[in-house]
Amino acid sequence: MKFIDRLRRAWAAQQSLLCVGLDPDPARFPRLLATSAHPIFEFGRAIVDATADLVCAFKPQIAYYAAARAEAELEMTIAHIRQHHPEIPVILDAKRGDIGSTAGMYAREAFERYHADAVTVNPYLGFDSLKPFLDFADKGVIVLCRTSNPGAREVQDLESGGRKLYQRIAEMAARDWNANANVLLVVGATYPQELRQIRAIVGDMPILVPGVGAQGGDVAAVLANGATADGTGLIISSSRAVLYAGGGDDYAQAARAAALKLRDEINQCRKQS
Amino acid sequence: MKFIDRLRRAWAAQQSLLCVGLDPDPARFPRLLATSAHPIFEFGRAIVDATADLVCAFKPQIAYYAAARAEAELEMTIAHIRQHHPEIPVILDAKRGDIGSTAGMYAREAFERYHADAVTVNPYLGFDSLKPFLDFADKGVIVLCRTSNPGAREVQDLESGGRKLYQRIAEMAARDWNANANVLLVVGATYPQELRQIRAIVGDMPILVPGVGAQGGDVAAVLANGATADGTGLIISSSRAVLYAGGGDDYAQAARAAALKLRDEINQCRKQS
Repeated sequence: MKFIDRLRRAWAAQQSLLCVGLDPDPARFPRLLATSAHPIFEFGRAIVDATADLVCAFKPQIAYYAAARAEAELEMTIAHIRQHHPEIPVILDAKRGDIGSTAGMYAREAFERYHADAVTVNPYLGFDSLKPFLDFADKGVIVLCRTSNPGAREVQDLESGGRKLYQRIAEMAARDWNANANVLLVVGATYPQELRQIRAIVGDMPILVPGVGAQGGDVAAVLANGATADGTGLIISSSRAVLYAGGGDDYAQAARAAALKLRDEINQCRKQS
Repeated sequence: MKFIDRLRRAWAAQQSLLCVGLDPDPARFPRLLATSAHPIFEFGRAIVDATADLVCAFKPQIAYYAAARAEAELEMTIAHIRQHHPEIPVILDAKRGDIGSTAGMYAREAFERYHADAVTVNPYLGFDSLKPFLDFADKGVIVLCRTSNPGAREVQDLESGGRKLYQRIAEMAARDWNANANVLLVVGATYPQELRQIRAIVGDMPILVPGVGAQGGDVAAVLANGATADGTGLIISSSRAVLYAGGGDDYAQAARAAALKLRDEINQCRKQS
């Protein structure tokens, strides 16, 4: 099944646009995990199992695993999701981008090694750097467009031909890169006006929206500016605000409570928009 | 010692601007390695030991290791270079780029886990995505500017304010991002006119130039357009044309011969320019 169809099925079945991002930072782990042989996996598994009925996707951030020399725990985490929650797609947040021959290796990393359903990529190197990912027609390729960080303005807002760079990227994504109907975009929740412009360019292409929670993005503004006519079209991702909602050994229950609150807040806004 | 000083020392001591890129592709390995417990490490070590007196840097490409589930062999390869060839800096080719908190994890991956001397990064997310790398003041941060692939034109050549995007990136790199004097740029050998423009913008900032060899870049044009007044300023990188110069069990000797020829060709052009 194509990624976008898996995503639509998850939106409907779960009644949720919420994605929980897995950014496991051992410095913030509860004491309970101090004696675990695989603390990063244990943490991720507990979060996944506590929130799986509330989300449309999980999004592990590979940098956190790589910094901790924990690629094996990333494999275990994704395998756990695929085995126990097979209806929930996995987005590997890796923001890869390289020339074609190397991009092919990164595509194998994401899709064959980790068995992710989708991966985030950087558009700076152009179409031929994206093609090895796009050639996996059943996988999702989520292209950075307007990111959630303050410095996004510096490069992504440069004007070109009367439009900003991020608008040009959105145009290329919708017009030139989407022959396999497997392109999505990343647009930060912290920039709702830009989200509105991008939605107007890309029609009903799904958009991954990080930046609610710790980064300060506003859920109502995201829905009002980014949702498609049927009240979907968005993967609204929160990582730290869910993962570290509780600092103690009840961290999984605290994460569930935070995810439940956020899912309901999103659904409330969907009804109103 | 700062990365740029290490690099200058290597340029002078080795009398070489050549960098050998380590893109280990097991599908192209000689039969000799079929029985090795660590074929990717063995391959890299043989190439390193056969070419270390000919180069100013080694550049392992992390995608090849990640696709093969061989992070441990990348660690072993870099440790081998640091132990046996400590005068040769190691550039981790990873092209990372993410929001600040995640970029901090990627910086730890490159500099603390792998002990690389420099890392390649993608500028699409702006300064705050580069800062966690730049804060390692003794490390080199090599920013993609104009890449060697055909699709580089698609995004990097967009016009903005009378200049192209890659020129804007070069300006920001030289003017805004280089407070620690640890920024370098990537400019593909396949685009000598763009290299000339970028050299004019960035003064004597060192430039990593991939794309000679398998990608078709011309050495004389690279030197004529990219060298600084003292005949340095460049890290000219070749990967596949060196690594796979011989297909048989004499691959290390064949790689040495290819690297020697390329180093000498570069030095001949330095004398003429």
